[in-house]
Amino acid sequence: MYDEVHIGTFTTESGISIPDVVISYERAGPTHGPIIFVCHALTGNQCSIGLNDSPGWWSGLIGEGKNIDTSRWQVITMNVLGGCSGSTGPQSMIHENQQYKARFPFVTVRDIVHSHYLALKKLGIHQVHAIIGGSLGGMQVLEWGIMYPDFAKMLFPLATSPYLSDYGIAYNTISRFAITNDPSWNDGEYDTNPNVGLSIARMVGMISYRSREQFNNKFSREAREGWGNHHEEKAFQIESYLHYQGEKFVNRFDANSYLYLLKAMDSHDIGRGRGGWLRALESISAKVVAISYKGDLIYPSETLEQLVEALKDKNPTSKHIEVDTSFGHDGFLVEYEKWGHLIEEELNENH
Amino acid sequence: MYDEVHIGTFTTESGISIPDVVISYERAGPTHGPIIFVCHALTGNQCSIGLNDSPGWWSGLIGEGKNIDTSRWQVITMNVLGGCSGSTGPQSMIHENQQYKARFPFVTVRDIVHSHYLALKKLGIHQVHAIIGGSLGGMQVLEWGIMYPDFAKMLFPLATSPYLSDYGIAYNTISRFAITNDPSWNDGEYDTNPNVGLSIARMVGMISYRSREQFNNKFSREAREGWGNHHEEKAFQIESYLHYQGEKFVNRFDANSYLYLLKAMDSHDIGRGRGGWLRALESISAKVVAISYKGDLIYPSETLEQLVEALKDKNPTSKHIEVDTSFGHDGFLVEYEKWGHLIEEELNENH
Repeated sequence: MYDEVHIGTFTTESGISIPDVVISYERAGPTHGPIIFVCHALTGNQCSIGLNDSPGWWSGLIGEGKNIDTSRWQVITMNVLGGCSGSTGPQSMIHENQQYKARFPFVTVRDIVHSHYLALKKLGIHQVHAIIGGSLGGMQVLEWGIMYPDFAKMLFPLATSPYLSDYGIAYNTISRFAITNDPSWNDGEYDTNPNVGLSIARMVGMISYRSREQFNNKFSREAREGWGNHHEEKAFQIESYLHYQGEKFVNRFDANSYLYLLKAMDSHDIGRGRGGWLRALESISAKVVAISYKGDLIYPSETLEQLVEALKDKNPTSKHIEVDTSFGHDGFLVEYEKWGHLIEEELNENH
Repeated sequence: MYDEVHIGTFTTESGISIPDVVISYERAGPTHGPIIFVCHALTGNQCSIGLNDSPGWWSGLIGEGKNIDTSRWQVITMNVLGGCSGSTGPQSMIHENQQYKARFPFVTVRDIVHSHYLALKKLGIHQVHAIIGGSLGGMQVLEWGIMYPDFAKMLFPLATSPYLSDYGIAYNTISRFAITNDPSWNDGEYDTNPNVGLSIARMVGMISYRSREQFNNKFSREAREGWGNHHEEKAFQIESYLHYQGEKFVNRFDANSYLYLLKAMDSHDIGRGRGGWLRALESISAKVVAISYKGDLIYPSETLEQLVEALKDKNPTSKHIEVDTSFGHDGFLVEYEKWGHLIEEELNENH
């Protein structure tokens, strides 16, 4: 079931008020069943389960008879504030006949979590069993644990980090530079997406989401017919693949929204204003089951390992699991047979 | 000493003739001393030693009293064919008043090596003691060993691979896409560099040259004053750093040249037309000392390890050394105290 909830005027961390904020969501499973709240990643949306003819991005993990079984659990996924899939964001109207575009205020991961908290409250939900999400979704999971310590019994941060590293900001920097320097971006005032910049941004993302091994095993230097006679012609299959991924993306995601969510990631640091990330962790009272994926370029396992080590004083049952995979960061979107059961077991055990 | 040598008409692997080809070079050390030939990387040039007031890119390794001691060895470095530092390339004249620009034929690593071989012959040099180079330079070193097996007694391929992996081509793909889609590129017919595309290309290079640890330790999420009020404002030092690297680069390197050298790297596969890379290695008769740098994202140590293992049947003294570093790929341009002595010892031992 898809719907939206109006949370009224929302004030960002930086003190800017956005009137009439709407949060779009997906809701499945028994109406009064215990709730699993799902946080989506940078290019995700509220359709984690999706529909039969268009399965959602986590339909391999969540659904009837899946590891997160919707015959047992109620599952709610909300589109992020600043997103482009129904929740208030740069494509929303600032006035009649005028969209926010680049006039939308910067939002942080904390703003996203705060807005979802208000949205859940409006739906009459004051507690959930667990919160789960990967990458930007995992950043939200950690903020949930700190901002609303009594809201969830369990937290599953996947493929994420207590703060975005400089190396992560570096990738975002290139993506942002590519979009904002595409003449079609026009300071955010475009009518159709700045395709070149957004394609570059997507391709820069792609090379960080999958591991070297994945690319090399998948393509094996497979060449196209001839090597081309011009620099714009594609010579290798990997080149066609990346161009295709870029093209596909510009048809489904708004460039301004992408810029806002990159900024939200850059600003992510659970320790900001809280005396550092180790100190911030002290607020978490939920059990944390952190999952990392081997070979994740931006979010290495060591960081989640450190996070869980630090949590163990207060939450001795918290744990970190590294999934052995060749996918790297994208591991949280594939191979559920490897790690889905871990989540299933934890959910059942702690219920 | 800087000079150039004319090698006449040069025919590329693909059968295209380039008339009046010139190769620019640097030459240092005793005129009749044994020769070390140096191959430069993607953004390098013939100035490996350089001048007092503008030291070359390998001046930490090569010079009087350095590991490659120019009081003992004669050192020659040549600018690559297709480059932009004096050797024939896209900035050269195709006719009076007209530059090649994007009409320059595609060149391969083999073309580069072939042209340098002809240039050395013109200088009366028919044999050298050793050939050394990193990255694209290391690709040349390997081709030297296969194309001219009797030319060098020793080969030092550093931070390189027998073929560019798909993951490597992926980075090049993004760089090429950024340059050729910059409207200022204008199909190669620009008067001033396409700054946006070339900056993006440089930044994409930078994130692959240095390791995650380097970026994270160097910047530690250091923020600039405030977070900016617009997407184009820089919020973190890493962002300023990358933008600066992009800006600096567009003032020193020609975008078309960059495109040609990316293509040369993409096409690099010592096994191409030779029955695979393992088969191709059988032609090498020189002793190979391969050096890799821990954490190299595109050129992992495993690949050079495999290469040397395969060589050992025929060249039991060949060896692979992994340098322990936090720099990753850029390791071959820094920390000479860690690995320069290895080269010094090998040069002396085998002389």
